Amino acid sequence: MKKSETKIFVSREPFALECGATLPELRIAYHTYGELNADRSNAVWVMHALTANSDVADWWPHTVEQGKFLDPDRWFVVCANVLGSCYGTTGPLTPLPPCGRPLYADFPQVTVRDMVRAHRLLASHLGIRQIDTLIGSSLGGFQALEWLVSQPEIARRAVLCATDYQCRPWLAAINKAMYMAIEADATYGQPRPDAARKGLEAARAMALLSYRSHSGYDATQADEPGRPDPFTRRAHSYQAYQGKKLADRFDVYSYMRMCQSSDSHDVSHGRGSFAEALGRIKARCLVVSVSSDILFPPSYHDEMAAMIPGAEKGMIQSEFAHDGFLIEHQQLDSLISDFRRRNP
Amino acid sequence: MKKSETKIFVSREPFALECGATLPELRIAYHTYGELNADRSNAVWVMHALTANSDVADWWPHTVEQGKFLDPDRWFVVCANVLGSCYGTTGPLTPLPPCGRPLYADFPQVTVRDMVRAHRLLASHLGIRQIDTLIGSSLGGFQALEWLVSQPEIARRAVLCATDYQCRPWLAAINKAMYMAIEADATYGQPRPDAARKGLEAARAMALLSYRSHSGYDATQADEPGRPDPFTRRAHSYQAYQGKKLADRFDVYSYMRMCQSSDSHDVSHGRGSFAEALGRIKARCLVVSVSSDILFPPSYHDEMAAMIPGAEKGMIQSEFAHDGFLIEHQQLDSLISDFRRRNP
Repeated sequence: MKKSETKIFVSREPFALECGATLPELRIAYHTYGELNADRSNAVWVMHALTANSDVADWWPHTVEQGKFLDPDRWFVVCANVLGSCYGTTGPLTPLPPCGRPLYADFPQVTVRDMVRAHRLLASHLGIRQIDTLIGSSLGGFQALEWLVSQPEIARRAVLCATDYQCRPWLAAINKAMYMAIEADATYGQPRPDAARKGLEAARAMALLSYRSHSGYDATQADEPGRPDPFTRRAHSYQAYQGKKLADRFDVYSYMRMCQSSDSHDVSHGRGSFAEALGRIKARCLVVSVSSDILFPPSYHDEMAAMIPGAEKGMIQSEFAHDGFLIEHQQLDSLISDFRRRNP
Repeated sequence: MKKSETKIFVSREPFALECGATLPELRIAYHTYGELNADRSNAVWVMHALTANSDVADWWPHTVEQGKFLDPDRWFVVCANVLGSCYGTTGPLTPLPPCGRPLYADFPQVTVRDMVRAHRLLASHLGIRQIDTLIGSSLGGFQALEWLVSQPEIARRAVLCATDYQCRPWLAAINKAMYMAIEADATYGQPRPDAARKGLEAARAMALLSYRSHSGYDATQADEPGRPDPFTRRAHSYQAYQGKKLADRFDVYSYMRMCQSSDSHDVSHGRGSFAEALGRIKARCLVVSVSSDILFPPSYHDEMAAMIPGAEKGMIQSEFAHDGFLIEHQQLDSLISDFRRRNP
């Protein structure tokens, strides 16, 4: 298919955040694939995870393709970069009025609820009244769940993959270990895009452990037998490479704000119990786990599916743990096709 | 029981390391509990894990007690601090001849094989010809396995708990993420005991994730409902506290050398296949897993037990993951009692 261009939606209204701060304006970078049909009934909205961007065809291979669950001939697919990120939507590196300089470390904290309210503005701008299928994985699933609970009519169907309805102590603990690595880098806080680069690289290497688990590393990073230096491991180079790769495309301030948003995630806040909050959901939901996921293990999804009215469960069998949702696109495609067939 | 004192064994002979460097002398700090009997048949040797010391009665509660598997009325229990550590055995903070200064970052790399060769000197010094039960958990299990393979007559029985016969890519990847956090602290490399303290704290917070898993954190670090600041989590304070607690009692150079030793662990190196190396073991072995361990998951132990002649398997049912071997002392005690009864 033709490569999609990044579009920018600008709202000149001040945007108030949950933390009490107000952004003077709001820019949202987004991609669309396919066309919105005449009765505006074919929108599929994808909410992206921690460090992705709005070009879902790029970061989620084999999905925006003919016959697949994001088929652009059938669906009007939308994906928008998240508030606080660094791919075109307002974030720590965005020059802001009145002085036209980025705020870096002083960029205010954003919540998952802020992220969703920002994207609701874009949905209105695009003329989307109801989404056919709302899809979110990982932090994208946090946003999808928040949207489904805060605006129950927004979607007919939803796919919630490798995600959760709250930030449990486990995720908060992983986040904190990353913050500690970032703050161990004394350049953290300096007003420049490449501040705390080494801290960010370490945080990414750490995060990857939770995305891959033992099965992923053991399957792909085995050393050759008889390696000359027993202290140097292939998995070391892999970790260093992955750290560098992220630091080449992301900045530490956006990374911190994205992670911190997940600390605040709790769909029940101000809405009673978890069961009461999730009980508001009107969309037909498919809750997908990855069998080896240690970040959001399948037991979390058993709890979640039990609280969402009529929710179905699906399982991706994979050794790639949390990253299985990106890698096992064929299994996910089958699960979503079957789900749509059962829930037309 | 009476508190045991730290004893020091000093070997004035140069000690050659696998990396090619030679230590001018060797000090080994150790504890003993109980008395060696007349026919020297009641020695139980405990090999400690990454950041522990030789006072096993202190770090492994309810084990060095009457009726328990380290009963000092029945056994002569020995535990020695590991080469490269900071609890009395020669390591990066030990003043060394000829200049009488610690080597800090210049302390040579040590391997699990070096650690075992050092402790073999102590065993000779203590007049121990054969150990009744050799016990090692985690990095202590690496050492125990290396000892059993390199000197098959050393022990009649062995308990190998939450450990492995090689450093797999998964552990190497965890180690590298810690090194990256430590090296993100620009004070790493400075010749002082408190260098890279923030990096060390971050590395410890990261390591704890692999010791506890989601079930451990979720069970013990839940927030109170309605917390005032959604960005501040109880699990954050816990991680910061655990980082500080380690940095108060350990130094970054010893920590690096201990972790790096695990990178080099491979009982098969120069000994054929894993099956050939483990096939040398003559001790009756009990291989113990913790059900929720994500650092050394039970699947690793299935492989290991299948390659050790006559090995038995035991399972600790626990939500505390890797740390279950320290916490679930009652289950471990039952497993070891039953194992000894079956293998008198």
